[in-house]
Amino acid sequence: MCPHVLIPYKPVNPKTRLSGLLNQEERQAFARAMLDDVLFAVKDANYSPVIIATELYESEDDVQITVPDADLNATLNSILPTAVSPMAILMADLPLADKDALKRVFATEKDVAFVPGRGGGTNVIFLRDAAKFHVDYYGGSFAKHVKIAEDAGLSWEVIDSFRLHTDIDEKEDLVELMIHGKGKSRAYLESLGFYLTEEQGRVGIGRK
Amino acid sequence: MCPHVLIPYKPVNPKTRLSGLLNQEERQAFARAMLDDVLFAVKDANYSPVIIATELYESEDDVQITVPDADLNATLNSILPTAVSPMAILMADLPLADKDALKRVFATEKDVAFVPGRGGGTNVIFLRDAAKFHVDYYGGSFAKHVKIAEDAGLSWEVIDSFRLHTDIDEKEDLVELMIHGKGKSRAYLESLGFYLTEEQGRVGIGRK
Repeated sequence: MCPHVLIPYKPVNPKTRLSGLLNQEERQAFARAMLDDVLFAVKDANYSPVIIATELYESEDDVQITVPDADLNATLNSILPTAVSPMAILMADLPLADKDALKRVFATEKDVAFVPGRGGGTNVIFLRDAAKFHVDYYGGSFAKHVKIAEDAGLSWEVIDSFRLHTDIDEKEDLVELMIHGKGKSRAYLESLGFYLTEEQGRVGIGRK
Repeated sequence: MCPHVLIPYKPVNPKTRLSGLLNQEERQAFARAMLDDVLFAVKDANYSPVIIATELYESEDDVQITVPDADLNATLNSILPTAVSPMAILMADLPLADKDALKRVFATEKDVAFVPGRGGGTNVIFLRDAAKFHVDYYGGSFAKHVKIAEDAGLSWEVIDSFRLHTDIDEKEDLVELMIHGKGKSRAYLESLGFYLTEEQGRVGIGRK
């Protein structure tokens, strides 16, 4: 059986830190496009995506679990004790994800593997035995997850991938997507008129 | 013989985009600490570092070439035609670099391998035959380097590493160094009183 990859997903009013650049409708379409890119990578690597959505949404293809409240930690921690292992939890805002990076995560010889997000978050957690771990997202979660693994006596390592490290939350992150993206979410930004600009030292982003 | 790794290095008034946080003397000490971390990784991987410095500086250990002008492109392009290959060019502001990431770069089967920097730069270039390539740094150099490889008929790929992707230019980059760094440059920031803070969504940085 293909290992499961749980993907938390917020279909309504997501990515509020991009509100200065995208209205709510655009943010929702953009989040869906990023999810599609993530799903493509997961399926390309031969894993089974399971979407943990905060609201029921229309989709013919998605295998989804709908949870009534938005507390990501409580939801995941109710699922992990009986989840089929090994498995992974993958954020939905990683549109640079690809098969090779995911396979490197699953190839770990440790009990747990993490890919940290930009700014101290946790973008990917691989669990050889999900019942032995619990999650604690938000606010510097990478450091918290390392401590949880160590307190449980689990070996762990960081998988070194900028494709999985680059979560898309802020304007500067869109630059990375425009440079390195190949999927639907980059195409969606381009359809909205976003383009790369030359700024001092680093490439920036503009919108027509 | 161990492959050469060329490391451009600016000992005087470097990292001006950090001027709001560090004075010139601190920026110079910080750049040197980052170089030390990079040198540690290069030697740990059994490669031979060669520092291309814009000024002569005091060091008993460093193998250095001093170039009279600060034009990085002209300097490197005068060296590449006769450089011993395979080799690599590595930026000096990559204090998260480690042996494993560098070995993955050198393990490429392509003619050229890149690790892009945050914001469209080029942090690492591996060249199987240096004489066939020329560099064009600054202003979105990753896209330019891809074009140079393609125009020369060279196969290329991107090596997926956040450790080599994270160049330290701006305040937000210091957060990554404080979270993931293990060497001298993180210790130097701590000695100056820098510490991690909780901000909305991502971890920030403060100074006592």
